[in-house]
Amino acid sequence: MRYLIIGAVAGGASAAARLRRNDEHAEIILFERGSHVSYANCGLPYYIGSVIKNRDDLFVQTAEAFRQRFNIDVRVKTEVLSINPTQKSILARNLITGEEYNVSYDKLLLSPGADAIRPPLPGINREGIFTLRNVRDTDFIKAYVNEKSVRKVAVVGAGFIGLEMAENLRHLGKEVSLIEMGNQVMAPLDYTMAAQVQETLRKEGVQLYLGQAVQRFDAGTDHPLRVELNSGKSLELDLVLLSIGVKPETKLASEAGLAIGNARGILVNEFLQTSNPDIYAVGDAIEFINPITGISMNTYLAGPANKQGRLAADNMVDGNKSPYSGSINTAIVKVFNQTVATTGMASKHLKAAGIPHVVSYTRSGSHAGYFPGARQMNIQLAFSPDNGRVLGAQIVGGEGVDKRIDVLSEIIKNQGTIRHLTEFEQAYAPPFSSAKDPINMAGFVAENILKGKHRIWNYFPEEGLPKGLLIDVRTPEEFSHGALQHAQNIPLDDLRSRMHELNPNEPIFIYCQSGLRGYLAQRILTQHGFLETFNLSGGYATYHPAFAEFQSLQSEKEKQQPVALGV
Amino acid sequence: MRYLIIGAVAGGASAAARLRRNDEHAEIILFERGSHVSYANCGLPYYIGSVIKNRDDLFVQTAEAFRQRFNIDVRVKTEVLSINPTQKSILARNLITGEEYNVSYDKLLLSPGADAIRPPLPGINREGIFTLRNVRDTDFIKAYVNEKSVRKVAVVGAGFIGLEMAENLRHLGKEVSLIEMGNQVMAPLDYTMAAQVQETLRKEGVQLYLGQAVQRFDAGTDHPLRVELNSGKSLELDLVLLSIGVKPETKLASEAGLAIGNARGILVNEFLQTSNPDIYAVGDAIEFINPITGISMNTYLAGPANKQGRLAADNMVDGNKSPYSGSINTAIVKVFNQTVATTGMASKHLKAAGIPHVVSYTRSGSHAGYFPGARQMNIQLAFSPDNGRVLGAQIVGGEGVDKRIDVLSEIIKNQGTIRHLTEFEQAYAPPFSSAKDPINMAGFVAENILKGKHRIWNYFPEEGLPKGLLIDVRTPEEFSHGALQHAQNIPLDDLRSRMHELNPNEPIFIYCQSGLRGYLAQRILTQHGFLETFNLSGGYATYHPAFAEFQSLQSEKEKQQPVALGV
Repeated sequence: MRYLIIGAVAGGASAAARLRRNDEHAEIILFERGSHVSYANCGLPYYIGSVIKNRDDLFVQTAEAFRQRFNIDVRVKTEVLSINPTQKSILARNLITGEEYNVSYDKLLLSPGADAIRPPLPGINREGIFTLRNVRDTDFIKAYVNEKSVRKVAVVGAGFIGLEMAENLRHLGKEVSLIEMGNQVMAPLDYTMAAQVQETLRKEGVQLYLGQAVQRFDAGTDHPLRVELNSGKSLELDLVLLSIGVKPETKLASEAGLAIGNARGILVNEFLQTSNPDIYAVGDAIEFINPITGISMNTYLAGPANKQGRLAADNMVDGNKSPYSGSINTAIVKVFNQTVATTGMASKHLKAAGIPHVVSYTRSGSHAGYFPGARQMNIQLAFSPDNGRVLGAQIVGGEGVDKRIDVLSEIIKNQGTIRHLTEFEQAYAPPFSSAKDPINMAGFVAENILKGKHRIWNYFPEEGLPKGLLIDVRTPEEFSHGALQHAQNIPLDDLRSRMHELNPNEPIFIYCQSGLRGYLAQRILTQHGFLETFNLSGGYATYHPAFAEFQSLQSEKEKQQPVALGV
Repeated sequence: MRYLIIGAVAGGASAAARLRRNDEHAEIILFERGSHVSYANCGLPYYIGSVIKNRDDLFVQTAEAFRQRFNIDVRVKTEVLSINPTQKSILARNLITGEEYNVSYDKLLLSPGADAIRPPLPGINREGIFTLRNVRDTDFIKAYVNEKSVRKVAVVGAGFIGLEMAENLRHLGKEVSLIEMGNQVMAPLDYTMAAQVQETLRKEGVQLYLGQAVQRFDAGTDHPLRVELNSGKSLELDLVLLSIGVKPETKLASEAGLAIGNARGILVNEFLQTSNPDIYAVGDAIEFINPITGISMNTYLAGPANKQGRLAADNMVDGNKSPYSGSINTAIVKVFNQTVATTGMASKHLKAAGIPHVVSYTRSGSHAGYFPGARQMNIQLAFSPDNGRVLGAQIVGGEGVDKRIDVLSEIIKNQGTIRHLTEFEQAYAPPFSSAKDPINMAGFVAENILKGKHRIWNYFPEEGLPKGLLIDVRTPEEFSHGALQHAQNIPLDDLRSRMHELNPNEPIFIYCQSGLRGYLAQRILTQHGFLETFNLSGGYATYHPAFAEFQSLQSEKEKQQPVALGV
């Protein structure tokens, strides 16, 4: 048997090692266009930021170790030019000697990855404009930062890599601007959660340009580069990092006649087999059915790629016995001292797909409040109002965010419901959790909503405040530090004695700092005959950043369009 | 409606607050024998150790806040003397005035907790011998430590509280001895894992006396106390903390004729209802069916108690609609810089219950190795060889142990299998995980075993080494730093060229440092016709502490019994 693998990072490298364990006697050839196999893709921003000090640490495996330990024929700096599925062979070119040759295969695995997008903007090829996808890019950026006196940088695109680069460049003491076409950072997040990340970025000195797109690059006056934005603003810069997205590398596959899907990835079946039964494909280049929506989509994540590599190797050797269950896009990013994580579907994407859902928020400590070092985290849940199935979760906080998103990922992936959250049995000791874990709290709140014991309202800045009586049940001191417009302050502990002040015929919109006291107030009022009462899920603390961000964005827009506003 | 609750900590306090939210108009009376409601039971060792500096932080809720916010009639320093289920009333005594009075109820909740065991040993009532169960105990211990010049202390009993107290007393600079009747610390752990904890305790200067029981307490010569052990040893001490266990407080319940179970807890049905339909019970005092074994057992954990309180309150108000799903004893403890956690069943308990299972070990980094600060963790799985159902997990490590045990808890509680581990979709970025999470790795290893691709051996010190060829496939350098007796060193990367040295008719027992290279070696040998090959699951690193501990225990015993050995 001869197995060929194209692409030696993540999925490809995983598959190669697994193939060897499955079949000691097969011939396995691994082609890699670049110089390195199995390197730490996700570590590149941190190496640029000198958080990872040693370049050698980026290499999980070397070509030599692959040869020695796995008896695999690794051919780096070798590009596969084409696949001939009829003859079951590939044409490869040695990028050093220029030599071209054919190799036949029994089974072929494609793991070509995805390529960073470089939009065809005027001036895009000027010196100092980089993308970051591999070790070569990394070396270029690091050398440029070290050798040129780089002081002002812009990151274009506020996705995961963009945020990690913004942090790492700040870590190097650079002035960092972050430019993003969308009206928020991190597209997988809903606005309320993204606003909390934006608050952190601003606090850490990152200049945010949201809802603004790059129009062109020119030579600057005081700095080598000038970037013009469609808002009319322009920035003088020493370096630009483009992180606006990636596109699956499907050229080889499509030229070989393999089916490409609607999401422009290589189409595979549940065994990661392409439309040609002897060719499998894994990683960023494929598309696969999302288990929640049933829609085929790309997943640009290292975890799924590695797992796919292992499964594909099993299916290639054993016949198709190991189905892939798909990814729910569980992802996480460190943004300075904040941790931001998501799993399943965002509310906006559920809305777009027409999937009914309720959104609830809770705020809880990462561990027992009386034990030093606890951090607040804000959990957003999206769940079905019919059966309580959990559809998505997002968390912003610090310590312990990774733990809770992992548990939620496991629950969502297995079609779990709110009941799984209320019954979740956390490992509790004061340094690690509370007697009621943040997951339990999120479950309790959602269960109360499902059972009709808790009626909530959500606040969307663009829709303004709801019509009715707005009651702030926090203490007068909290109220004095900032409150919603036109809200009346009736502290929770005074509510029983002061409810005669309220009109029972008017809807009442309650809020507190994080949602708990508002809920208690609602329970009291409801049981005293105030039937149209609603509590702001997550409270003032959850929505405050969104509100502030939205207002600043609005006033920004007004400044940009003085003529239109003057009419 | 009038609800009475006996016991105002954990389950009782949770139930009281939930009852009020469920029923704004009911009368709710909460009786508490002690002075405090809803205090941080699990924080007490840390307050003694001054990790928690402020005594007020121990009080999650005050009686006053309960009255104000929840309109609950809280009666502290009030002991309930008896229950009259026929008349549906209780007899209470005000412990300050001595006044006794009856109160009738519609529904009653028992949350009396469990009491620390004080064995009737000679001298047990001497000054300086404490148990730790509540704030009063804590105040006594803290005052004693501060006022007397306490230097040498012994903790008797190496369970969770015992270990936390040992750490906290070390933190105060005391000389700490830890005395434990069993041959290991932490009875819920299997020996291999417990040995790793023991290694840490010794490194941190805790003197361990394992397999030794206290026989009597006397006055000491240089210190106020002398403890005599059944091993013949004696220790001079300033303070003794007894943490040998607790027993459910069932006196009230049994005197009222409520059914008591085989585990000596109050018997409840799935709705946490006792044998009397108007009386519910929660917390440490009850026993409940373990979802894995189907056997009724006690659970002395705060998480389950709090969740039970909430469910009992729902069932008391809404009728029995909210079943309790039981606890799988997920627990965690910080032991100096180590974290130790367990969920589901230990192998030794599965063995005792006659449940067939495989035990496998993995060692993985808490996050990507190239990102600073990763810590190794050792995961032990117990799973069914028939269907791959996960029956138990134990982890020893540092950062990230809490996360993995929580995910495993969720999987085990929902009857998950090894496949849930392999498919687990972790949130991955370098600071938080690896592309293959430790959970995935544990799953991959177990799946290979299930599928017959990986044949393992486990090492039990008391059984000695297996008969056959023992091959150490680590590097010569690793081998030189310590290896198993009679092992032959053939480094993995030399195996293909040196396998001719091996006798194909002899069983081969392979090991490496953590199990991976041994597995690769096994795959190579098996596919070259060496069919009787086995790899040491978890490798040398996993078993080394157990081996060392066992040997030192053996030589200890030999010293103790010179005559017997002399025969």
